[in-house]
Amino acid sequence: MRNDSREPNQLRPVSITTNVNKHAEGSVLIEVGDTKVICTASIEERVPPFMKGQGKGWINAEYSMLPRATHSRNQRESARGKLTGRTMEIQRLIGRALRSVVDLSALGERTITLDCDVIQADGGTRTTSITGAFVALALAVHHISKTVSFNKYPIRDFLASVSVGVIQERALLDLNYEEDSKAKVDMNVVMTGQGKFVEVQGTGEDAPFSREELNELLALGEAGIAELIEKQREVLGEVAARIGVK
Amino acid sequence: MRNDSREPNQLRPVSITTNVNKHAEGSVLIEVGDTKVICTASIEERVPPFMKGQGKGWINAEYSMLPRATHSRNQRESARGKLTGRTMEIQRLIGRALRSVVDLSALGERTITLDCDVIQADGGTRTTSITGAFVALALAVHHISKTVSFNKYPIRDFLASVSVGVIQERALLDLNYEEDSKAKVDMNVVMTGQGKFVEVQGTGEDAPFSREELNELLALGEAGIAELIEKQREVLGEVAARIGVK
Amino acid sequence: MRNDSREPNQLRPVSITTNVNKHAEGSVLIEVGDTKVICTASIEERVPPFMKGQGKGWINAEYSMLPRATHSRNQRESARGKLTGRTMEIQRLIGRALRSVVDLSALGERTITLDCDVIQADGGTRTTSITGAFVALALAVHHISKTVSFNKYPIRDFLASVSVGVIQERALLDLNYEEDSKAKVDMNVVMTGQGKFVEVQGTGEDAPFSREELNELLALGEAGIAELIEKQREVLGEVAARIGVK
Amino acid sequence: MRNDSREPNQLRPVSITTNVNKHAEGSVLIEVGDTKVICTASIEERVPPFMKGQGKGWINAEYSMLPRATHSRNQRESARGKLTGRTMEIQRLIGRALRSVVDLSALGERTITLDCDVIQADGGTRTTSITGAFVALALAVHHISKTVSFNKYPIRDFLASVSVGVIQERALLDLNYEEDSKAKVDMNVVMTGQGKFVEVQGTGEDAPFSREELNELLALGEAGIAELIEKQREVLGEVAARIGVK
Amino acid sequence: MRNDSREPNQLRPVSITTNVNKHAEGSVLIEVGDTKVICTASIEERVPPFMKGQGKGWINAEYSMLPRATHSRNQRESARGKLTGRTMEIQRLIGRALRSVVDLSALGERTITLDCDVIQADGGTRTTSITGAFVALALAVHHISKTVSFNKYPIRDFLASVSVGVIQERALLDLNYEEDSKAKVDMNVVMTGQGKFVEVQGTGEDAPFSREELNELLALGEAGIAELIEKQREVLGEVAARIGVK
Amino acid sequence: MRNDSREPNQLRPVSITTNVNKHAEGSVLIEVGDTKVICTASIEERVPPFMKGQGKGWINAEYSMLPRATHSRNQRESARGKLTGRTMEIQRLIGRALRSVVDLSALGERTITLDCDVIQADGGTRTTSITGAFVALALAVHHISKTVSFNKYPIRDFLASVSVGVIQERALLDLNYEEDSKAKVDMNVVMTGQGKFVEVQGTGEDAPFSREELNELLALGEAGIAELIEKQREVLGEVAARIGVK
Repeated sequence: MRNDSREPNQLRPVSITTNVNKHAEGSVLIEVGDTKVICTASIEERVPPFMKGQGKGWINAEYSMLPRATHSRNQRESARGKLTGRTMEIQRLIGRALRSVVDLSALGERTITLDCDVIQADGGTRTTSITGAFVALALAVHHISKTVSFNKYPIRDFLASVSVGVIQERALLDLNYEEDSKAKVDMNVVMTGQGKFVEVQGTGEDAPFSREELNELLALGEAGIAELIEKQREVLGEVAARIGVK
Repeated sequence: MRNDSREPNQLRPVSITTNVNKHAEGSVLIEVGDTKVICTASIEERVPPFMKGQGKGWINAEYSMLPRATHSRNQRESARGKLTGRTMEIQRLIGRALRSVVDLSALGERTITLDCDVIQADGGTRTTSITGAFVALALAVHHISKTVSFNKYPIRDFLASVSVGVIQERALLDLNYEEDSKAKVDMNVVMTGQGKFVEVQGTGEDAPFSREELNELLALGEAGIAELIEKQREVLGEVAARIGVK
Repeated sequence: MRNDSREPNQLRPVSITTNVNKHAEGSVLIEVGDTKVICTASIEERVPPFMKGQGKGWINAEYSMLPRATHSRNQRESARGKLTGRTMEIQRLIGRALRSVVDLSALGERTITLDCDVIQADGGTRTTSITGAFVALALAVHHISKTVSFNKYPIRDFLASVSVGVIQERALLDLNYEEDSKAKVDMNVVMTGQGKFVEVQGTGEDAPFSREELNELLALGEAGIAELIEKQREVLGEVAARIGVK
Repeated sequence: MRNDSREPNQLRPVSITTNVNKHAEGSVLIEVGDTKVICTASIEERVPPFMKGQGKGWINAEYSMLPRATHSRNQRESARGKLTGRTMEIQRLIGRALRSVVDLSALGERTITLDCDVIQADGGTRTTSITGAFVALALAVHHISKTVSFNKYPIRDFLASVSVGVIQERALLDLNYEEDSKAKVDMNVVMTGQGKFVEVQGTGEDAPFSREELNELLALGEAGIAELIEKQREVLGEVAARIGVK
Repeated sequence: MRNDSREPNQLRPVSITTNVNKHAEGSVLIEVGDTKVICTASIEERVPPFMKGQGKGWINAEYSMLPRATHSRNQRESARGKLTGRTMEIQRLIGRALRSVVDLSALGERTITLDCDVIQADGGTRTTSITGAFVALALAVHHISKTVSFNKYPIRDFLASVSVGVIQERALLDLNYEEDSKAKVDMNVVMTGQGKFVEVQGTGEDAPFSREELNELLALGEAGIAELIEKQREVLGEVAARIGVK
Repeated sequence: MRNDSREPNQLRPVSITTNVNKHAEGSVLIEVGDTKVICTASIEERVPPFMKGQGKGWINAEYSMLPRATHSRNQRESARGKLTGRTMEIQRLIGRALRSVVDLSALGERTITLDCDVIQADGGTRTTSITGAFVALALAVHHISKTVSFNKYPIRDFLASVSVGVIQERALLDLNYEEDSKAKVDMNVVMTGQGKFVEVQGTGEDAPFSREELNELLALGEAGIAELIEKQREVLGEVAARIGVK
């Protein structure tokens, strides 16, 4: 039995509130259980130096946790003077995942930066950030589309992410913090609305895992992501309609 | 006429929601108009090196803005690798102000860190942070008092802060961002529940000001702070009762 | 009785020696009691990026203390790899104060950087820096005026600064280090030759202060600054004549 | 046809030279095609602060590339003043992977640091580092075993890693740099001698991938790793005998 | 008797292997006894900002040691976030020495960066780096000469370096690590093929030295460098022929 | 003819003013021509970590230039966030040179830090710093000797330094900035009161130099240093008497 009485294949309650920031071109507060992340999308009409002159856009992500998002207070990375390896790894993952469903040529020479700030953490902050950032991104692209006429809509597909893991020989969906800290195998899965994989990151630091376990985890993740994408569709309403249309 | 139709001596709508963070010993979301700040208080049972062995506690504050708290996105200080002078100045101010109403000997050898994270900015973020952080601090001290018996209650008085300024020869209370950027004189006032000054910081970079203007601004600030302290009392409920009791 | 036998409203001996540096366009050694600061003004024929294309100039200030300016040696900020919050706060204050009496449009697209290096510290280093930096600035603008014909003289007024504080219920002018470390209220005042306020920064970390105390402190500061400006006029000689002329 | 005429399931030539460093307790030069990495293992008789007092050891990894390991010269991270996100991600991966086959309790309170320095890069530097670092680690543990009698041998199993990817709809083993830069899907697999997974990191930034493709890639990786482990056994000689013995 | 049985005026065995890196325009592995350094030369068709528009080239050097090049492991400078004073001093020396034999005008507006990475250290790493870097530089200039027709060949002379020192009143050539750590006087000499001095850096931190000792050390260095330059000529083969030709 | 009409073997006017800082245990203002350096000595009753438990003391030096010490303003190293290679090289040299005449065992477990801050620069700032720092050090050791009874006096000998160089084939003593920038060979010499060498650092970046030139430069330096040490003796008065006494 899970510590919050969920079924092995049950997500925590998911809530996505849109337009929570009066300045950002797209924004959401996403809550998955007690994990709460504010995702904002900011548009700039230029691209980073390494992308210049290619007629393409860029999607960038940054991730951070408020010092007291966690059980005990963490030192701010601004005070340490540098990002931790964990933060860098997570924001590289978020950016890469989002870019996989964006047609950068269709976007044109502009950058959209997704800021994922974890207000409260209870496991799954990186997967929740991806799921929330996708919605903020979709709102920002919709915002651009009000004044810019895209030849092709830049968002090719939906995208969401969830964690799965093995605890005491059982595969579980959407681990909370207490579960995460006991998991022998920990995997983050990112998938598209078409049911394809964008990222699969499985780690068995405490116990290597078999092909069977891997398959079971992927199946759980696939089902969970389908539910999350359903939720995204719902909150995006009419904005959802143009995604993936050719 | 002000851009949001307020009277010169009228505060913006103020809302203070307590216990917004499941981990922190004290927490609030304070909203003053469109300025929104999450303040959390974190208790550690030790003091910084320079305070060791004195039998006293310490109050520390940190301040930050989410990248898109502002109209256009700001680079994260963690990414720049250092704090700006503005951030340092603000967090020194918040810490100093809070310490002025705390009896550090009565607190005992523990540190309370107040994190003020601006979720959305529309002027007055430093004064709003002080007003909100005081409430989070009061909640944290109350939390300690459940298990520790203080000889003397460590919080001596209430504390709140507001900005005042001169625009087109008129003294105004609680400037929003648009007003702030047009003000010729800008002043932040921090006061106690007893109506005494803790900090007075007035700047006339664009136009030096006279003794009369200074007096008018201080009177406006005094009245505004009294209102804010009334609000603090209300949300603190029974926690307010022990503050300042000898 | 003060530890150096001064009256409550008496400044320490003030000495301002001009042209102490063979390279700088303006320079002074200012001594206020045992506090000694070298202020140099350096002219560059360009402005920082954020000021470009506005046809205006810029005044910038930097502040530092030699490691052994103080009673015990301080680590260099260059060795720590970053400026302390105190240094940032002080140099922001100096720059802001100087800009308040400069007509940046009249100055034209050039930057004057004021370096205030404390050779020996005995209280009041920030206020002494402002008073000395104003003289170095006036010399540098005079230097420019030898080759450039200003439509309007860029310096609008004199500027000086002094500290005031409350020790054992008495308001005192120009605190030395020993006094400063015992003061319950500490205030820095910056004023113009016309007797207007540019900055008022009062802090009662150890004891909040009343409106009456504030008034008494401002009166002391006002008188002290008038004396300092008299001194500035004297050392500037003919350079003083053009200041504030329209 | 591959640019170096290999079969889709063929590794590049692999060479592992042991004891290439006279100071290190374990060292190898590993060459996989034109990718060359020096891996050294350094033993310290203490553990990092977060591991103290648990009676356990620690395995740590650091990764770097010489500036001209790559086609065009890269700036040194020491000159930039910080590690890139890529480096942090890689060294976290190497450390995590190695720890998965080490019994930290059996190792005792000591730290083994694996330095992986890429002398020349041609794709697969992170997987090659893992494969080489395992051998250096095994040599270092063997070195300890000469003077320390382990109750249980601290290395539980072999460990190696390889990259796989999809280029033009074909799954390929062990991508070189040119292949890697054209791959639509890129996956790194780390496995044990028992054929279990330790890490699976698949990324389809350019094109999401299906469950079938994932399965095909894993099968290729599995076979390649078995070959690499055979090579490790060979160069370790008698040192190999104790690995995984209970 | 020396710890490796050498005569006082005898170099350690010297080996210079050219073209050890497939990417670099010039590269060597130089071994002097157990000291091993990889030197690569990288060409860029531009010069640093301070050299722009002068029609001249630039030679730059960087130096680093792998963490386990030394007897006990050293922390990486990339992890510390800054270069040590020792590294900066050495790389300034290498660059300055190489520039002394290069005609920067003849080279044209291009930069050659010499990276000296110490793979294994046993004394004399900076002098070995200079001797090796010269060969890599010569190969890189030769590489340029295949496509660019120089009016004047940019390398004016050979260049090599060796250390000398005084141990127990005896002057010794080419100190290894054990000797170096016992030396009372330590000197690094850099000379040209014409037998002129480029750098003489002698330090008697433990015991000041006389003019006679200085003379003896210089004589030893001069002879050792002549041998090293002979070795350089040999490995450079036909590339050597154009050096110093007018 | 030199630009300031000196003879080739003539020092610039030298002035050493002692006790210029009320806080430091030893301090001087040294002026050599227009080069002006404040040297302070600070005593701490502890040694750095790497010297602990050896019963020995330590001498450390730091060097810096005020931003406008030079013809055009230099950026502060504290603002850049790191020391330049030049600064590190110079402060390593000063510390090493001073330690060569101090008996660290006789000094006991204390650290003396010499801060050399260049107030105005006109060539020779590092050699002037050494000459001045020696006097500050001697004053500080004398200060200790008032309360501590040394078995052996910790300062073994005098120490001073001067620059020499070759301009248009002539060897010159004590180069000023204009000379220094035209010198083909540049050498810094540090010697003891007994006439022995502590450091010889000669550089011929623009033109390699012969053994004869080297000898001529050393002879010039030797004579100049003897004069400087005479000056040191004079200003130290009775403090000079104990130096080098066994």
